[in-house]
Amino acid sequence: MARGKLIVVSAPSGCGKGTILGRVLADQERFYYSVSATTRNPREGEVNGTHYWFLTREDFEQKIAQGEFLEHAQFCDHYYGTPLGPIEEHLAKGQDVILEIEVQGAMQIRGKRPDANFIFIAPPSLETVRERLIGRGTETMDVIEKRVAQAEKELKLRDQYDYCVVNDDLDTAVADFLSVVRAIELRVGK
Amino acid sequence: MARGKLIVVSAPSGCGKGTILGRVLADQERFYYSVSATTRNPREGEVNGTHYWFLTREDFEQKIAQGEFLEHAQFCDHYYGTPLGPIEEHLAKGQDVILEIEVQGAMQIRGKRPDANFIFIAPPSLETVRERLIGRGTETMDVIEKRVAQAEKELKLRDQYDYCVVNDDLDTAVADFLSVVRAIELRVGK
Repeated sequence: MARGKLIVVSAPSGCGKGTILGRVLADQERFYYSVSATTRNPREGEVNGTHYWFLTREDFEQKIAQGEFLEHAQFCDHYYGTPLGPIEEHLAKGQDVILEIEVQGAMQIRGKRPDANFIFIAPPSLETVRERLIGRGTETMDVIEKRVAQAEKELKLRDQYDYCVVNDDLDTAVADFLSVVRAIELRVGK
Repeated sequence: MARGKLIVVSAPSGCGKGTILGRVLADQERFYYSVSATTRNPREGEVNGTHYWFLTREDFEQKIAQGEFLEHAQFCDHYYGTPLGPIEEHLAKGQDVILEIEVQGAMQIRGKRPDANFIFIAPPSLETVRERLIGRGTETMDVIEKRVAQAEKELKLRDQYDYCVVNDDLDTAVADFLSVVRAIELRVGK
């Protein structure tokens, strides 16, 4: 059994990343989706081990000390991190591990894991990001404009990735994503 | 119009490379197959510009002097080379250029062209190489054993390539090859 591949995916908000990954991850035999750990409290409906691994601050800090995170960071007084154990376990089983993370976290991983492969999902334009965020109807225009500005900043970092999939047409984007994954599986020495 | 990608393909004999490329290159809009130049005489049925560009020794040497080859070599007293002009022309038109070449030539190109992408086509085993060569019925067993030994040597160089497509089942190999090509098209900065 060949070892699985470590695949890091980033995208600005409003790129349709969630929809693309939802389709791709339907193949549960082939893929394992890396679940993050956090010290924040679960929200309504969030399930431990599915949405996050919910840890106490003490547990989280102990795991940091023991090197059990691939990367971690603090936002708004809470820890967030990527547990290494499940990743290694599923790679060893031959599954590809999909790790969804923002660009700063991705760049931390690039430094640590020469075996990791990096995919960026990009919108066809910033205008489509704005339209998609408006279409969701969950945010005020003020928040939407901040997200669009953030997306613009993140888009400049696409050059740091190995592959860039543009989500213009959803079916094409999913097919492109799967082509990239297959190529990563056929990549020599990664 | 985005620039096309330069894709270098090598394979030991008996890998089914010709069959795979035949299927892939059917899409003539998308691909340009780089035609080599040579100073040897055309064989029965060989067409100038399709099988080779047939050049005189003087022409060939002048083109070497003018830097018009991506790489060139001498075998059995004849020059063989890869003309740079058509490659650049088709890349500029947005077509992917497929350059089929043996491993030594490929490694020469790796040194010169950081924008090139390298695909190795491998047999599932040396035994299948032997069987395929026997199946062709065109060579003596003595020649076949030499080719198998040569294939074994070349297989060790697959690690020098970016991607390796194993031709066990033909349909799968063609699909894998096209996935790799699509991923190369989506590759950042190459």
